[in-house]
Amino acid sequence: MRKIYVIGIGSGDPDQLTLQAAKAIGRTDVFFLLDKGEAKESMIELRRRMLKAYGRPSRRIAEGRDPDRDRAPADYEATIADWRRRRSEVTEALIGEHLLDGETGAFLVWGDPSLYDSTIAILDEILARGQTTFEYEVIPGISSVSTLAARHRIGLNRVGRPFQVTTGRRLAEGWPDGADDVIVMLDAHQTFGTVDAENVEIFWGAYLGTEDELLVAGPLDEVADEIRRVRAEARERHGWIMDTYLLRRRA
Amino acid sequence: MRKIYVIGIGSGDPDQLTLQAAKAIGRTDVFFLLDKGEAKESMIELRRRMLKAYGRPSRRIAEGRDPDRDRAPADYEATIADWRRRRSEVTEALIGEHLLDGETGAFLVWGDPSLYDSTIAILDEILARGQTTFEYEVIPGISSVSTLAARHRIGLNRVGRPFQVTTGRRLAEGWPDGADDVIVMLDAHQTFGTVDAENVEIFWGAYLGTEDELLVAGPLDEVADEIRRVRAEARERHGWIMDTYLLRRRA
Repeated sequence: MRKIYVIGIGSGDPDQLTLQAAKAIGRTDVFFLLDKGEAKESMIELRRRMLKAYGRPSRRIAEGRDPDRDRAPADYEATIADWRRRRSEVTEALIGEHLLDGETGAFLVWGDPSLYDSTIAILDEILARGQTTFEYEVIPGISSVSTLAARHRIGLNRVGRPFQVTTGRRLAEGWPDGADDVIVMLDAHQTFGTVDAENVEIFWGAYLGTEDELLVAGPLDEVADEIRRVRAEARERHGWIMDTYLLRRRA
Repeated sequence: MRKIYVIGIGSGDPDQLTLQAAKAIGRTDVFFLLDKGEAKESMIELRRRMLKAYGRPSRRIAEGRDPDRDRAPADYEATIADWRRRRSEVTEALIGEHLLDGETGAFLVWGDPSLYDSTIAILDEILARGQTTFEYEVIPGISSVSTLAARHRIGLNRVGRPFQVTTGRRLAEGWPDGADDVIVMLDAHQTFGTVDAENVEIFWGAYLGTEDELLVAGPLDEVADEIRRVRAEARERHGWIMDTYLLRRRA
Protein backbone atom coordinates (compact mmCIF):
# COMPACT_ATOMS: atom_id res chain seq x y z
CA MET A 1 0.00 0.00 0.00
CA ARG A 2 1.10 3.53 -0.72
CA LYS A 3 0.54 6.39 1.69
CA ILE A 4 0.26 10.11 1.11
CA TYR A 5 0.47 12.89 3.66
CA VAL A 6 -1.20 16.25 3.10
CA ILE A 7 0.88 18.38 5.42
CA GLY A 8 -0.07 21.87 6.56
CA ILE A 9 3.21 23.73 6.94
CA GLY A 10 2.02 27.03 8.38
CA SER A 11 1.66 30.41 6.82
CA GLY A 12 5.29 31.26 6.14
CA ASP A 13 7.31 31.06 9.37
CA PRO A 14 9.34 27.82 9.38
CA ASP A 15 8.84 27.67 13.16
CA GLN A 16 5.08 27.42 12.62
CA LEU A 17 5.65 23.84 11.58
CA THR A 18 4.18 21.42 14.10
CA LEU A 19 6.22 18.53 15.49
CA GLN A 20 3.70 16.24 13.79
CA ALA A 21 4.37 17.90 10.44
CA ALA A 22 8.14 17.73 10.92
CA LYS A 23 7.88 14.03 11.74
CA ALA A 24 5.71 13.37 8.68
CA ILE A 25 8.26 15.18 6.50
CA GLY A 26 10.87 12.88 8.00
CA ARG A 27 8.85 9.79 7.02
CA THR A 28 8.30 10.88 3.42
CA ASP A 29 10.06 9.30 0.44
CA VAL A 30 8.67 11.54 -2.30
CA PHE A 31 7.49 15.15 -2.12
CA PHE A 32 5.05 16.23 -4.80
CA LEU A 33 5.39 19.86 -5.79
CA LEU A 34 2.94 21.54 -8.10
CA ASP A 35 4.27 24.97 -8.75
CA LYS A 36 2.92 27.84 -10.69
CA GLY A 37 5.02 29.32 -13.44
CA GLU A 38 5.28 32.59 -11.55
CA ALA A 39 7.59 31.34 -8.87
CA LYS A 40 7.31 32.87 -5.43
CA GLU A 41 10.99 32.40 -4.84
CA SER A 42 11.04 33.23 -1.14
CA MET A 43 8.29 30.70 -0.42
CA ILE A 44 9.97 27.99 -2.47
CA GLU A 45 13.20 28.65 -0.61
CA LEU A 46 11.37 28.35 2.70
CA ARG A 47 9.98 24.96 1.73
CA ARG A 48 13.41 23.85 0.59
CA ARG A 49 14.79 24.75 4.02
CA MET A 50 12.07 22.72 5.74
CA LEU A 51 12.89 19.67 3.65
CA LYS A 52 16.59 20.10 4.36
CA ALA A 53 15.96 20.43 8.10
CA TYR A 54 13.44 17.60 8.57
CA GLY A 55 13.53 15.42 5.46
CA ARG A 56 15.41 12.17 4.91
CA PRO A 57 18.63 12.49 2.98
CA SER A 58 17.17 10.03 0.45
CA ARG A 59 13.99 12.03 -0.15
CA ARG A 60 12.98 12.64 -3.73
CA ILE A 61 11.13 15.55 -5.32
CA ALA A 62 8.54 15.00 -8.04
CA GLU A 63 7.65 18.26 -9.71
CA GLY A 64 4.60 18.90 -11.83
CA ARG A 65 3.38 21.93 -13.68
CA ASP A 66 0.26 23.42 -12.13
CA PRO A 67 -2.29 23.87 -14.95
CA ASP A 68 -3.20 27.44 -15.78
CA ARG A 69 -6.64 28.74 -15.06
CA ASP A 70 -8.75 31.66 -16.07
CA ARG A 71 -8.37 34.30 -13.36
CA ALA A 72 -11.55 36.16 -14.30
CA PRO A 73 -13.94 33.41 -15.38
CA ALA A 74 -17.55 33.97 -16.37
CA ASP A 75 -18.61 30.87 -14.44
CA TYR A 76 -16.41 30.66 -11.35
CA GLU A 77 -17.47 27.27 -10.01
CA ALA A 78 -17.36 25.53 -13.39
CA THR A 79 -13.95 27.01 -14.13
CA ILE A 80 -12.60 25.86 -10.77
CA ALA A 81 -14.11 22.39 -11.25
CA ASP A 82 -12.42 22.12 -14.65
CA TRP A 83 -9.11 23.38 -13.28
CA ARG A 84 -9.34 20.95 -10.40
CA ARG A 85 -9.96 18.06 -12.80
CA ARG A 86 -6.91 18.98 -14.88
CA ARG A 87 -4.93 19.42 -11.71
CA SER A 88 -6.00 16.02 -10.44
CA GLU A 89 -4.86 14.46 -13.72
CA VAL A 90 -1.41 16.02 -13.43
CA THR A 91 -1.29 14.92 -9.80
CA GLU A 92 -2.43 11.38 -10.58
CA ALA A 93 0.27 11.06 -13.24
CA LEU A 94 2.90 12.26 -10.77
CA ILE A 95 1.79 9.77 -8.12
CA GLY A 96 1.65 6.94 -10.66
CA GLU A 97 5.11 7.68 -11.92
CA HIS A 98 6.98 8.47 -8.72
CA LEU A 99 5.35 6.82 -5.69
CA LEU A 100 6.43 3.19 -5.47
CA ASP A 101 4.63 0.44 -3.62
CA GLY A 102 5.18 0.69 0.13
CA GLU A 103 6.42 4.26 -0.13
CA THR A 104 5.14 7.44 1.44
CA GLY A 105 4.51 10.62 -0.50
CA ALA A 106 3.59 14.09 0.69
CA PHE A 107 2.07 17.35 -0.43
CA LEU A 108 3.19 20.41 1.51
CA VAL A 109 0.36 22.89 1.83
CA TRP A 110 0.83 26.48 2.95
CA GLY A 111 -1.34 27.31 5.93
CA ASP A 112 -3.95 24.70 6.80
CA PRO A 113 -5.16 22.14 4.21
CA SER A 114 -8.77 22.64 5.37
CA LEU A 115 -8.90 26.31 4.39
CA TYR A 116 -9.40 27.28 0.74
CA ASP A 117 -6.97 24.66 -0.51
CA SER A 118 -7.75 22.03 -3.14
CA THR A 119 -5.31 19.24 -2.26
CA ILE A 120 -7.83 17.13 -0.32
CA ALA A 121 -10.47 17.46 -3.04
CA ILE A 122 -7.92 16.53 -5.71
CA LEU A 123 -6.87 13.37 -3.86
CA ASP A 124 -10.54 12.43 -3.38
CA GLU A 125 -11.12 12.98 -7.09
CA ILE A 126 -8.21 10.69 -7.98
CA LEU A 127 -9.45 7.99 -5.60
CA ALA A 128 -12.98 8.31 -6.98
CA ARG A 129 -11.71 7.57 -10.50
CA GLY A 130 -10.50 4.26 -9.08
CA GLN A 131 -7.36 3.87 -11.19
CA THR A 132 -4.78 4.92 -8.60
CA THR A 133 -4.98 3.72 -5.02
CA PHE A 134 -3.35 4.96 -1.85
CA GLU A 135 -4.31 5.87 1.70
CA TYR A 136 -3.92 9.40 2.83
CA GLU A 137 -3.74 11.43 6.02
CA VAL A 138 -4.14 15.15 6.63
CA ILE A 139 -1.94 17.01 9.10
CA PRO A 140 -3.39 20.35 10.16
CA GLY A 141 -1.31 23.50 9.92
CA ILE A 142 -1.32 27.05 11.27
CA SER A 143 -3.39 29.08 8.84
CA SER A 144 -2.80 32.67 7.74
CA VAL A 145 -6.07 33.45 9.55
CA SER A 146 -4.73 32.22 12.90
CA THR A 147 -1.51 34.09 12.23
CA LEU A 148 -3.41 37.27 11.39
CA ALA A 149 -5.28 37.09 14.70
CA ALA A 150 -2.13 36.27 16.68
CA ARG A 151 -0.13 39.14 15.17
CA HIS A 152 -2.92 41.63 15.83
CA ARG A 153 -3.53 40.01 19.24
CA ILE A 154 -7.26 39.70 18.68
CA GLY A 155 -9.86 36.98 18.80
CA LEU A 156 -11.53 36.01 15.54
CA ASN A 157 -14.85 35.99 17.38
CA ARG A 158 -16.29 38.34 19.95
CA VAL A 159 -17.78 36.87 23.14
CA GLY A 160 -20.33 34.20 22.27
CA ARG A 161 -20.71 35.55 18.73
CA PRO A 162 -20.28 33.97 15.29
CA PHE A 163 -17.91 34.95 12.54
CA GLN A 164 -17.83 34.22 8.85
CA VAL A 165 -14.90 33.29 6.66
CA THR A 166 -15.39 34.24 3.04
CA THR A 167 -13.66 35.32 -0.15
CA GLY A 168 -13.07 38.69 -1.80
CA ARG A 169 -15.38 37.57 -4.60
CA ARG A 170 -18.23 36.98 -2.16
CA LEU A 171 -17.62 40.17 -0.20
CA ALA A 172 -17.99 42.08 -3.47
CA GLU A 173 -21.67 41.02 -3.37
CA GLY A 174 -22.12 42.90 -0.08
CA TRP A 175 -21.58 42.40 3.62
CA PRO A 176 -22.60 38.82 4.37
CA ASP A 177 -25.72 38.08 6.36
CA GLY A 178 -25.46 36.57 9.79
CA ALA A 179 -22.13 37.91 11.08
CA ASP A 180 -20.57 41.21 12.14
CA ASP A 181 -17.08 39.71 12.01
CA VAL A 182 -15.91 38.69 8.57
CA ILE A 183 -12.58 37.22 7.57
CA VAL A 184 -11.75 37.70 3.92
CA MET A 185 -9.37 35.49 1.96
CA LEU A 186 -8.33 35.28 -1.70
CA ASP A 187 -9.04 38.95 -2.28
CA ALA A 188 -6.99 40.34 -5.17
CA HIS A 189 -9.09 43.47 -5.46
CA GLN A 190 -9.07 45.16 -2.05
CA THR A 191 -12.76 44.53 -1.78
CA PHE A 192 -12.76 46.09 1.71
CA GLY A 193 -13.07 49.35 -0.24
CA THR A 194 -16.58 48.40 -1.35
CA VAL A 195 -18.19 47.94 2.07
CA ASP A 196 -19.87 50.65 4.10
CA ALA A 197 -16.94 51.69 6.28
CA GLU A 198 -18.98 53.24 9.04
CA ASN A 199 -18.44 51.49 12.37
CA VAL A 200 -16.09 48.96 10.77
CA GLU A 201 -12.57 48.20 11.93
CA ILE A 202 -10.13 46.32 9.72
CA PHE A 203 -7.24 44.09 10.79
CA TRP A 204 -5.12 43.49 7.70
CA GLY A 205 -1.99 41.43 7.14
CA ALA A 206 0.21 40.32 4.24
CA TYR A 207 3.04 37.76 3.99
CA LEU A 208 1.90 36.66 7.44
CA GLY A 209 4.52 34.86 9.47
CA THR A 210 7.36 35.76 7.11
CA GLU A 211 10.13 38.33 7.42
CA ASP A 212 8.19 40.51 4.99
CA GLU A 213 5.06 40.54 7.14
CA LEU A 214 2.94 43.70 6.95
CA LEU A 215 0.21 44.64 9.41
CA VAL A 216 -2.25 47.52 9.39
CA ALA A 217 -5.24 47.94 11.70
CA GLY A 218 -7.72 50.69 12.46
CA PRO A 219 -11.08 52.18 11.53
CA LEU A 220 -11.69 51.17 7.92
CA ASP A 221 -12.37 54.70 6.69
CA GLU A 222 -9.10 55.93 8.22
CA VAL A 223 -6.73 53.15 7.11
CA ALA A 224 -8.17 51.89 3.80
CA ASP A 225 -5.94 54.20 1.76
CA GLU A 226 -2.87 53.25 3.77
CA ILE A 227 -3.58 49.56 3.14
CA ARG A 228 -3.98 50.19 -0.59
CA ARG A 229 -0.68 52.07 -0.69
CA VAL A 230 1.26 49.56 1.44
CA ARG A 231 -0.21 46.68 -0.53
CA ALA A 232 0.62 48.18 -3.94
CA GLU A 233 4.19 48.96 -2.93
CA ALA A 234 4.76 45.49 -1.50
CA ARG A 235 3.23 43.76 -4.50
CA GLU A 236 5.50 45.79 -6.78
CA ARG A 237 8.58 45.01 -4.69
CA HIS A 238 7.97 41.25 -4.27
CA GLY A 239 6.18 40.54 -7.53
CA TRP A 240 3.34 38.84 -5.62
CA ILE A 241 1.26 39.33 -2.52
CA MET A 242 -0.86 37.15 -0.27
CA ASP A 243 -3.00 39.01 2.22
CA THR A 244 -6.01 38.46 4.42
CA TYR A 245 -8.06 40.58 6.77
CA LEU A 246 -10.78 40.69 9.37
CA LEU A 247 -13.61 43.23 9.15
CA ARG A 248 -15.24 43.89 12.51
CA ARG A 249 -18.49 45.84 12.54
CA ARG A 250 -19.89 47.43 15.66
CA ALA A 251 -22.97 45.40 16.51
CA MET B 1 10.19 44.98 31.24
CA ARG B 2 8.18 41.83 31.74
CA LYS B 3 6.97 39.70 28.87
CA ILE B 4 4.08 37.28 28.58
CA TYR B 5 3.45 34.66 25.92
CA VAL B 6 -0.02 33.44 25.08
CA ILE B 7 0.84 30.08 23.56
CA GLY B 8 -1.58 28.00 21.50
CA ILE B 9 -0.64 24.39 22.28
CA GLY B 10 -2.93 22.53 19.89
CA SER B 11 -6.08 20.59 20.49
CA GLY B 12 -4.71 17.68 22.51
CA ASP B 13 -1.96 15.90 20.58
CA PRO B 14 1.43 16.92 22.03
CA ASP B 15 2.86 16.67 18.50
CA GLN B 16 0.51 19.44 17.40
CA LEU B 17 2.79 21.86 19.22
CA THR B 18 4.57 24.14 16.79
CA LEU B 19 8.33 24.63 16.94
CA GLN B 20 7.59 28.27 17.76
CA ALA B 21 5.44 27.23 20.73
CA ALA B 22 8.07 24.75 21.96
CA LYS B 23 10.72 27.48 21.79
CA ALA B 24 8.50 29.93 23.67
CA ILE B 25 7.91 27.32 26.38
CA GLY B 26 11.68 26.99 26.59
CA ARG B 27 12.09 30.74 27.15
CA THR B 28 9.46 30.97 29.89
CA ASP B 29 10.28 31.49 33.56
CA VAL B 30 6.76 31.27 34.97
CA PHE B 31 3.73 29.41 33.66
CA PHE B 32 0.37 30.72 34.78
CA LEU B 33 -2.27 28.04 35.16
CA LEU B 34 -5.86 28.87 35.85
CA ASP B 35 -7.63 25.62 36.38
CA LYS B 36 -11.19 24.81 36.99
CA GLY B 37 -12.12 22.80 40.06
CA GLU B 38 -13.32 19.92 37.88
CA ALA B 39 -9.90 18.79 36.76
CA LYS B 40 -9.58 17.23 33.32
CA GLU B 41 -6.77 15.03 34.49
CA SER B 42 -5.68 13.73 31.09
CA MET B 43 -5.38 17.27 29.72
CA ILE B 44 -3.44 18.50 32.75
CA GLU B 45 -1.10 15.53 32.39
CA LEU B 46 -0.57 16.37 28.72
CA ARG B 47 0.38 19.93 29.59
CA ARG B 48 2.74 18.66 32.29
CA ARG B 49 4.46 16.48 29.69
CA MET B 50 4.91 19.45 27.35
CA LEU B 51 6.52 21.50 30.11
CA LYS B 52 8.79 18.60 31.00
CA ALA B 53 9.81 18.10 27.36
CA TYR B 54 10.37 21.76 26.36
CA GLY B 55 10.50 23.86 29.54
CA ARG B 56 13.56 25.06 31.42
CA PRO B 57 14.48 23.03 34.47
CA SER B 58 14.14 26.24 36.52
CA ARG B 59 10.61 27.00 35.30
CA ARG B 60 8.04 27.87 37.92
CA ILE B 61 4.30 27.27 38.00
CA ALA B 62 1.90 29.88 39.38
CA GLU B 63 -1.54 28.41 39.88
CA GLY B 64 -4.73 30.36 40.32
CA ARG B 65 -8.30 29.32 40.90
CA ASP B 66 -10.51 30.02 37.90
CA PRO B 67 -13.58 31.90 39.19
CA ASP B 68 -16.87 30.06 38.90
CA ARG B 69 -19.53 31.27 36.55
CA ASP B 70 -23.21 30.72 36.00
CA ARG B 71 -23.54 28.07 33.29
CA ALA B 72 -27.13 28.99 32.40
CA PRO B 73 -27.23 32.76 32.81
CA ALA B 74 -30.22 34.92 31.99
CA ASP B 75 -27.97 37.56 30.40
CA TYR B 76 -25.15 35.70 28.66
CA GLU B 77 -22.97 38.62 27.63
CA ALA B 78 -23.19 40.42 30.97
CA THR B 79 -22.44 37.19 32.83
CA ILE B 80 -19.39 36.54 30.65
CA ALA B 81 -18.20 40.14 31.04
CA ASP B 82 -18.46 39.84 34.82
CA TRP B 83 -16.69 36.47 34.84
CA ARG B 84 -13.98 37.86 32.62
CA ARG B 85 -13.45 40.78 34.99
CA ARG B 86 -13.12 38.47 37.99
CA ARG B 87 -10.82 36.26 35.98
CA SER B 88 -8.67 39.23 35.00
CA GLU B 89 -8.37 40.19 38.68
CA VAL B 90 -7.18 36.71 39.64
CA THR B 91 -4.80 36.77 36.68
CA GLU B 92 -3.48 40.24 37.52
CA ALA B 93 -2.77 39.16 41.09
CA LEU B 94 -0.89 36.08 39.84
CA ILE B 95 1.22 38.16 37.47
CA GLY B 96 1.93 40.78 40.14
CA GLU B 97 2.99 38.17 42.64
CA HIS B 98 4.99 35.77 40.47
CA LEU B 99 6.42 37.50 37.40
CA LEU B 100 9.57 39.38 38.31
CA ASP B 101 11.12 42.27 36.40
CA GLY B 102 12.90 41.04 33.28
CA GLU B 103 11.17 37.68 33.40
CA THR B 104 8.95 35.93 30.87
CA GLY B 105 5.63 34.38 31.75
CA ALA B 106 3.27 32.26 29.67
CA PHE B 107 -0.30 31.10 29.42
CA LEU B 108 -0.80 27.78 27.65
CA VAL B 109 -4.04 27.81 25.69
CA TRP B 110 -5.65 24.68 24.26
CA GLY B 111 -6.23 25.00 20.53
CA ASP B 112 -5.71 28.48 19.10
CA PRO B 113 -5.87 31.59 21.32
CA SER B 114 -7.89 33.42 18.65
CA LEU B 115 -10.84 31.03 18.79
CA TYR B 116 -13.37 31.31 21.63
CA ASP B 117 -10.69 31.82 24.26
CA SER B 118 -10.57 34.71 26.71
CA THR B 119 -6.84 34.97 27.51
CA ILE B 120 -6.12 37.82 25.07
CA ALA B 121 -9.13 39.82 26.26
CA ILE B 122 -8.11 39.28 29.89
CA LEU B 123 -4.59 40.55 29.29
CA ASP B 124 -5.99 43.58 27.44
CA GLU B 125 -8.32 44.23 30.37
CA ILE B 126 -5.41 44.11 32.83
CA LEU B 127 -3.33 46.47 30.69
CA ALA B 128 -6.29 48.84 30.31
CA ARG B 129 -6.56 49.16 34.10
CA GLY B 130 -3.02 50.52 33.97
CA GLN B 131 -1.74 49.08 37.27
CA THR B 132 0.23 46.14 35.90
CA THR B 133 2.47 46.48 32.87
CA PHE B 134 4.01 43.93 30.55
CA GLU B 135 4.36 43.30 26.86
CA TYR B 136 2.75 40.25 25.37
CA GLU B 137 2.90 38.10 22.28
CA VAL B 138 0.44 35.55 20.90
CA ILE B 139 1.62 32.31 19.33
CA PRO B 140 -1.03 30.65 17.17
CA GLY B 141 -1.94 27.02 17.71
CA ILE B 142 -3.73 24.22 15.89
CA SER B 143 -7.41 24.53 16.78
CA SER B 144 -9.90 21.75 17.35
CA VAL B 145 -11.62 23.02 14.19
CA SER B 146 -8.53 22.43 12.03
CA THR B 147 -8.11 19.05 13.68
CA LEU B 148 -11.74 18.16 13.03
CA ALA B 149 -11.32 18.94 9.33
CA ALA B 150 -8.00 17.09 9.09
CA ARG B 151 -9.33 13.95 10.78
CA HIS B 152 -12.41 13.88 8.54
CA ARG B 153 -10.24 14.85 5.56
CA ILE B 154 -12.53 17.65 4.50
CA GLY B 155 -12.25 21.34 3.75
CA LEU B 156 -14.04 23.72 6.08
CA ASN B 157 -15.24 25.61 3.02
CA ARG B 158 -16.58 24.41 -0.30
CA VAL B 159 -15.12 25.91 -3.50
CA GLY B 160 -15.28 29.69 -3.36
CA ARG B 161 -17.94 29.61 -0.65
CA PRO B 162 -18.13 31.07 2.86
CA PHE B 163 -18.53 29.28 6.15
CA GLN B 164 -19.60 30.42 9.55
CA VAL B 165 -18.15 29.53 12.94
CA THR B 166 -20.64 29.81 15.75
CA THR B 167 -21.69 28.47 19.13
CA GLY B 168 -24.28 25.92 20.22
CA ARG B 169 -26.16 28.76 21.91
CA ARG B 170 -26.44 30.64 18.62
CA LEU B 171 -27.33 27.57 16.58
CA ALA B 172 -30.25 27.02 18.96
CA GLU B 173 -31.75 30.21 17.47
CA GLY B 174 -31.84 28.57 14.04
CA TRP B 175 -29.57 27.91 11.09
CA PRO B 176 -27.48 31.06 10.63
CA ASP B 177 -28.04 33.30 7.65
CA GLY B 178 -25.39 33.61 5.00
CA ALA B 179 -23.69 30.19 5.06
CA ASP B 180 -24.48 26.57 4.22
CA ASP B 181 -21.40 25.37 6.11
CA VAL B 182 -21.51 25.95 9.85
CA ILE B 183 -18.94 24.98 12.44
CA VAL B 184 -20.34 24.74 15.93
CA MET B 185 -18.28 25.10 19.08
CA LEU B 186 -19.09 25.22 22.80
CA ASP B 187 -22.20 23.13 22.36
CA ALA B 188 -23.12 21.29 25.53
CA HIS B 189 -26.62 20.44 24.34
CA GLN B 190 -26.24 18.59 21.02
CA THR B 191 -27.97 21.45 19.31
CA PHE B 192 -27.49 19.72 15.95
CA GLY B 193 -30.68 17.89 16.95
CA THR B 194 -32.68 21.11 16.57
CA VAL B 195 -31.86 21.92 12.95
CA ASP B 196 -33.80 20.70 9.94
CA ALA B 197 -31.76 17.61 9.10
CA GLU B 198 -32.84 17.35 5.48
CA ASN B 199 -29.90 17.65 3.10
CA VAL B 200 -27.48 18.21 5.98
CA GLU B 201 -24.32 16.24 6.64
CA ILE B 202 -22.55 16.37 9.98
CA PHE B 203 -18.86 15.86 10.69
CA TRP B 204 -18.50 15.46 14.43
CA GLY B 205 -15.47 14.97 16.65
CA ALA B 206 -14.65 14.83 20.36
CA TYR B 207 -11.34 14.84 22.28
CA LEU B 208 -9.81 15.78 18.93
CA GLY B 209 -6.13 15.00 18.60
CA THR B 210 -6.03 12.87 21.75
CA GLU B 211 -5.91 9.10 22.21
CA ASP B 212 -9.59 9.24 23.13
CA GLU B 213 -10.59 10.92 19.87
CA LEU B 214 -14.05 10.07 18.55
CA LEU B 215 -15.29 10.76 15.03
CA VAL B 216 -18.70 10.31 13.46
CA ALA B 217 -19.81 11.59 10.05
CA GLY B 218 -22.80 11.11 7.82
CA PRO B 219 -26.24 12.42 6.92
CA LEU B 220 -27.51 14.20 10.03
CA ASP B 221 -30.79 12.32 10.17
CA GLU B 222 -28.96 8.98 10.03
CA VAL B 223 -26.16 9.61 12.52
CA ALA B 224 -27.62 12.09 15.05
CA ASP B 225 -28.69 9.29 17.41
CA GLU B 226 -25.32 7.59 17.12
CA ILE B 227 -23.56 10.84 18.04
CA ARG B 228 -25.85 11.31 21.06
CA ARG B 229 -25.14 7.78 22.23
CA VAL B 230 -21.37 7.92 21.64
CA ARG B 231 -21.20 11.34 23.26
CA ALA B 232 -23.16 10.32 26.36
CA GLU B 233 -21.08 7.18 26.87
CA ALA B 234 -17.80 9.07 26.48
CA ARG B 235 -18.88 11.87 28.78
CA GLU B 236 -19.83 9.30 31.41
CA ARG B 237 -16.55 7.45 31.04
CA HIS B 238 -14.24 10.50 31.07
CA GLY B 239 -16.25 12.79 33.32
CA TRP B 240 -16.05 15.57 30.71
CA ILE B 241 -16.29 16.04 26.96
CA MET B 242 -15.15 18.64 24.47
CA ASP B 243 -16.61 18.26 21.01
CA THR B 244 -17.13 20.28 17.85
CA TYR B 245 -18.77 19.69 14.51
CA LEU B 246 -19.37 20.94 11.00
CA LEU B 247 -22.87 21.02 9.52
CA ARG B 248 -22.85 21.02 5.72
CA ARG B 249 -26.12 21.75 3.94
CA ARG B 250 -26.66 20.98 0.30
CA ALA B 251 -26.82 24.36 -1.42
